[in-house]
Amino acid sequence: MDTWAPGAAGSAWDVDNLPYGVFSRADGQRHVGVRIGEHVLDLAPLARRQRLDTASALAATNLNPLMACGQDQLTGLRNWLRHALTDLAWQPEVAPYLTPLSEVELHLPIDVGDYVDFYASEHHASNVGRIFRPDQEPLLPNWKHLPVGYHGRSGTIVASDTGVRRPSGQRRGETGPVFGPSTRLDIEAELGFVVGRPSQHGSPVPMRHFQAHVFGVVGVNDWSARDIQAWEYVPLGPFLAKSFATSISHWVTPLAALEAAWVPMPRQVPRPLDYLDPDRAMALDIAIEVELNGHVVSRPPYRSMYWSPAQMLAHLTVNGASVRTGDLYASGTVSGPEPGQEGSLLELSHGWSTPFGPQRRLALEDGDTVTLRYTAPGALGGRIALGEVTGTILPAE
Amino acid sequence: MDTWAPGAAGSAWDVDNLPYGVFSRADGQRHVGVRIGEHVLDLAPLARRQRLDTASALAATNLNPLMACGQDQLTGLRNWLRHALTDLAWQPEVAPYLTPLSEVELHLPIDVGDYVDFYASEHHASNVGRIFRPDQEPLLPNWKHLPVGYHGRSGTIVASDTGVRRPSGQRRGETGPVFGPSTRLDIEAELGFVVGRPSQHGSPVPMRHFQAHVFGVVGVNDWSARDIQAWEYVPLGPFLAKSFATSISHWVTPLAALEAAWVPMPRQVPRPLDYLDPDRAMALDIAIEVELNGHVVSRPPYRSMYWSPAQMLAHLTVNGASVRTGDLYASGTVSGPEPGQEGSLLELSHGWSTPFGPQRRLALEDGDTVTLRYTAPGALGGRIALGEVTGTILPAE
Repeated sequence: MDTWAPGAAGSAWDVDNLPYGVFSRADGQRHVGVRIGEHVLDLAPLARRQRLDTASALAATNLNPLMACGQDQLTGLRNWLRHALTDLAWQPEVAPYLTPLSEVELHLPIDVGDYVDFYASEHHASNVGRIFRPDQEPLLPNWKHLPVGYHGRSGTIVASDTGVRRPSGQRRGETGPVFGPSTRLDIEAELGFVVGRPSQHGSPVPMRHFQAHVFGVVGVNDWSARDIQAWEYVPLGPFLAKSFATSISHWVTPLAALEAAWVPMPRQVPRPLDYLDPDRAMALDIAIEVELNGHVVSRPPYRSMYWSPAQMLAHLTVNGASVRTGDLYASGTVSGPEPGQEGSLLELSHGWSTPFGPQRRLALEDGDTVTLRYTAPGALGGRIALGEVTGTILPAE
Repeated sequence: MDTWAPGAAGSAWDVDNLPYGVFSRADGQRHVGVRIGEHVLDLAPLARRQRLDTASALAATNLNPLMACGQDQLTGLRNWLRHALTDLAWQPEVAPYLTPLSEVELHLPIDVGDYVDFYASEHHASNVGRIFRPDQEPLLPNWKHLPVGYHGRSGTIVASDTGVRRPSGQRRGETGPVFGPSTRLDIEAELGFVVGRPSQHGSPVPMRHFQAHVFGVVGVNDWSARDIQAWEYVPLGPFLAKSFATSISHWVTPLAALEAAWVPMPRQVPRPLDYLDPDRAMALDIAIEVELNGHVVSRPPYRSMYWSPAQMLAHLTVNGASVRTGDLYASGTVSGPEPGQEGSLLELSHGWSTPFGPQRRLALEDGDTVTLRYTAPGALGGRIALGEVTGTILPAE
């Protein structure tokens, strides 16, 4: 049955999608909402009226309490929403809680705990290896044995549409380091996974428990200053090259909306250790578009990633590290095997050597706007849209 | 005037110390307290009765609201406490809020935002370089130009006395990685700095604003699995080797208690860039004792560190990254120039080659207990104690 919500039926934001987010109207008060078409549904008052068991979680000003709810409650809420948005009998009750997106402001949807960034694309890691170490094997010895990752800064994660100030820092000069605004500002087109149910400190989360702990996905642009990174990253990894800002989408797409998106993984050779069991690993058929100043410059396919979302979570926790509600782990740059599927400008420009796209860009310039768009197969046969991630580069202070 | 608080006058926990912490009595309710002698003073009811302007911040269940207060309020509270604990006229009013430490449980004092770990000891970095790269310069080219650092996991920061489960993970084997409990479990004796007043995203915190943003210090043991670290850390830095647990002290010593502890730094050559101005850099004369199963095995001197606390904060934010109340940044392993001043077992055992101490240890064994103790010059002429950090190794699951 088609939804009665205005303009939503057959769109990329139909009832098979229903991502959650946080919005405010003119008074600035933050509300938890769900997106349907070009509207957001205010969930707290509706849930209270309908005495849904998620009502108190939905009264929060971010998604964390909702994400921490059990799977039964979340499934119940989603089923109720699909029913209420398709059965015309519910329209008089529900429609008053719809607000057009043009009349709201959208906010950072989650209170982020720890932020981990992986490096899970073989094509990205190989491209980067070839650019930086042209005479050696492109992949390092550990790469095919574990999903390489590191912790990023959660306090500078910002919502889509937030301006991104060009960072200053040290980079290598001819006779020593020089200080100044980054001249190699880059993007990393990524997919992020948001933890709902926490795990216990000391107890690893096996791959089969992925769905029990991960609530949903967000789009991620892990802005990167490559000149700062090159000088600082040995031996403890990227730090200031990444910590100035990471943008995520306004909308968190629950895993329940991605059930039609699971596809087989590329084969993993050599076979990883048992806790990373490749027989259980599944990929997500999420298509990404990288748009630079209105021009699509790349189409990275998430399904080409080497390490699966469940493998990343199993690895992250195999030492007993716990995850908390709101923890975010991202895939690392998504790059596919073909030209035109690169997830970073470093790769699109072949190591800053070859201008790309209609504007002949190398690195990002002040005023550049980057938008990442994501789609996935939906349960109704079409493609659902995930939240997009946009940011514009502001000049260094 | 001596304090009337029982047993405190002339001790390492006199009125020139007064660290803050979080405690509970039998009912489990968490309270903010200040330590005097072997007692904790329950601050919320006292502040409410006395109508102190910090009263609502002190009613919290962690120190974050207090730490976010302005310096005037914090100075006012500290002055009031010193007065109330020394003037006998206050005793009838204040003494009922004292509880012996033996009757309370102490908790993680802060809600940690981001956790950054530096690598700021030249002696430690050189020792490690000599062990791992015996044929090369012990320090990497960037080391004397910037305080090298990385983000750690804040969700697995635990309070002193929490048991530490030996982590399992991948390490390098002869024909590929092998999986199992770490066989090279180590400590890192560090000092941590806790942020009080937040900074603005996009605005660096210059060195001269250090005191305005940092509330105080904690003891830190950054437990490390060296075998996991050696296999995973190239190219993105340490990850699972550190993320299983980091222990901090129950007590947060405010900077106000450390005014007598500032001493000149070792000279920095080559001179770092202007934002790391060495003319403003000061060290802290904090002595550390590393005790393993009751035997002192090392005495690392914090004053021998190469990079200062203000330089670390200036570097951490120079790219515009913001700090939040509760953010923690640690010094990295504190090792001094002399034998017997090493802050890790890796160094004490000369790269796992030479058993050390009365128990002839190399790496940590199950059941081992490590305690880090810290003292600093106090305003009354003696030495104040900082919170100690203790942990016992539990066998792998």
